[in-house]
Amino acid sequence: MYIDNKHYRTIWPSPRCQSVEIINQTLLPFKFEVLQITSLTMMVEAIRTMQVRGAPLIGAAAAYGMALAMREDDGDASLQSAAAQLIAARPTAVNLAWAVNRMVETLTALEPAKRNINAWQQAAHIAEEDVKQNQAIGEHGLQLIKDAHDGSTFNVLTHCNAGWLATVDYGTALSPIYAAHDAGLAVHVWVDETRPRNQGASLTAWELAQHGVPHTVITDNAGGHLMQQGQVDMVIVGADRVTAGGDVCNKIGTYLKALAAHDNHVPFYAAVPSPTIDWQVKANEIDIENRHEDEVLTITGLAQDQTIQQVRVVAEGSPALNPAFDVTPARLVTGIITERGVFKPSNLYQLASQLEESVGNPV
Amino acid sequence: MYIDNKHYRTIWPSPRCQSVEIINQTLLPFKFEVLQITSLTMMVEAIRTMQVRGAPLIGAAAAYGMALAMREDDGDASLQSAAAQLIAARPTAVNLAWAVNRMVETLTALEPAKRNINAWQQAAHIAEEDVKQNQAIGEHGLQLIKDAHDGSTFNVLTHCNAGWLATVDYGTALSPIYAAHDAGLAVHVWVDETRPRNQGASLTAWELAQHGVPHTVITDNAGGHLMQQGQVDMVIVGADRVTAGGDVCNKIGTYLKALAAHDNHVPFYAAVPSPTIDWQVKANEIDIENRHEDEVLTITGLAQDQTIQQVRVVAEGSPALNPAFDVTPARLVTGIITERGVFKPSNLYQLASQLEESVGNPV
Repeated sequence: MYIDNKHYRTIWPSPRCQSVEIINQTLLPFKFEVLQITSLTMMVEAIRTMQVRGAPLIGAAAAYGMALAMREDDGDASLQSAAAQLIAARPTAVNLAWAVNRMVETLTALEPAKRNINAWQQAAHIAEEDVKQNQAIGEHGLQLIKDAHDGSTFNVLTHCNAGWLATVDYGTALSPIYAAHDAGLAVHVWVDETRPRNQGASLTAWELAQHGVPHTVITDNAGGHLMQQGQVDMVIVGADRVTAGGDVCNKIGTYLKALAAHDNHVPFYAAVPSPTIDWQVKANEIDIENRHEDEVLTITGLAQDQTIQQVRVVAEGSPALNPAFDVTPARLVTGIITERGVFKPSNLYQLASQLEESVGNPV
Repeated sequence: MYIDNKHYRTIWPSPRCQSVEIINQTLLPFKFEVLQITSLTMMVEAIRTMQVRGAPLIGAAAAYGMALAMREDDGDASLQSAAAQLIAARPTAVNLAWAVNRMVETLTALEPAKRNINAWQQAAHIAEEDVKQNQAIGEHGLQLIKDAHDGSTFNVLTHCNAGWLATVDYGTALSPIYAAHDAGLAVHVWVDETRPRNQGASLTAWELAQHGVPHTVITDNAGGHLMQQGQVDMVIVGADRVTAGGDVCNKIGTYLKALAAHDNHVPFYAAVPSPTIDWQVKANEIDIENRHEDEVLTITGLAQDQTIQQVRVVAEGSPALNPAFDVTPARLVTGIITERGVFKPSNLYQLASQLEESVGNPV
């Protein structure tokens, strides 16, 4: 998408495949910086310190990490060691392990001399796949917006950051919004700040501003009131996991917005690439991670002296609990927007059939 | 209530009625400071700068402001000027104008020489009335908790600060919790941090900690998930206004918690003194104040160098909207806890009758 009128992805190889460039997301929204990653070690560090973040982007970054490793040393030991280092950088990231294992599988089958060039091609392919899936999500979501749009400004509420910064390009929940904006429709986005890590305020607002999409930041408390006042036409969120029955596991607070949407007859969609659907798990089996209480007890922002500072917002002596996700039951979900179309929660089995039929023929 | 094992109110006269002492709430939770207010001018400033805040407390502070004025000059001009200055300190505070007007009415009828001593008595009476009402709310709420308590820890979720810091003592929503804790029941409070002004994290958590009530701070996003997990037994909030039909206007985000409570069969109560019930207004007539966007764009906390700092959490160029309250429809409200008992929203007319019968015989 666009930053200051220039097109960017979140990750791209240098012209002769000697290094990889990334947007350093740890400084956003206060500073825009492109980092040149020239070694496997630097890529491991970039993933570990969240200079790149968001499941799809981490997958692509890890794939390029393997390519950097093959450029340094295309031997078997290097291949195995690189894979282990990358997977250990963010142990719970499913896409990361998936991308690394896919790279290892392909590269192991090749003689070492062919690995370097092939690794860069394969990494580019993984990145391109992400872009294509997200673009398709955007097209299907755009149709929903077109169908509901009455000519006046169309207000979409979103939670957390499921934008292009979390992917290679386009994003998931924001992809339909970019598609609508680029198609000339008048869209405006209510951006939940999304405590505790404030990804809405810091990332979603920033990327929408850079691309020129009208938006307004609100506290996580405000969305219900705005829906009561008829100021929200649609809710679109991303998801970390969707069950076969259409229950949506996403950033903590999503469930409250889904309740308000339901209470006010506002359509509520989750936008996800089909691999995010976990066909095995049941809603009550999803284990919700409790993250460190410091994320609640403190906030990071830009101080008046323009340094990035962490301030404590709760007195010493009061503990905090920090569940990171919640599960929105399918009964509150209008539809799941995927790269293969929009499905009612109760119709996700149709997507499952499509996917089975098309093994080896991805979108 | 207790601070560090010592009993405090939020406001009290010096032994010989020469000054008034208050807890400076602008430094909480990071610093506890008692301020000696020795003049009308200082009290106007204390109200204006929110060293005292919370509707009931502001009323009592204004009454004491009138007493300080009469101590300085008991003439008619002083009386009128003091009233005007106090009312202008927080123009939208209903309790403030109510308390000042009550003082003016009483004092105007007296000859100047009797005004000083009478003003201090009258101010003490207004403060005492608040304490008695809140105590009664605590007793009625305690009964609800006793009835629902099964012997294991009873988890109450609250939003914003409707604690003793917002009143002269006991608080409204927190009064039943203090009563239960003091009665030896095992209670634990989930404290919504309550963005944007963070009154939960900064005031509610602090006052509960000081009184020794077990509690845990959570983001405003987390309450729905905790209710889904069966970790909330009751929600109790305060209110800025309650309609005759039982609709509850309270801090933004209350509505979302009421929806989640309803969805998970958790009882949802608002605790208010009966004057908070507006017998005339209808829910859709309540005008919701949009406060300054800077409250959303920035957060104040304690920096690592122990100074209180404001940090910006949103990039320049992204606007924010800051609605301060929302209205929870009566259908989501289990009951209204008042100083005269607990009423179902549909039975508030019974309270109206009681109040009419007892004009001149307050609790």
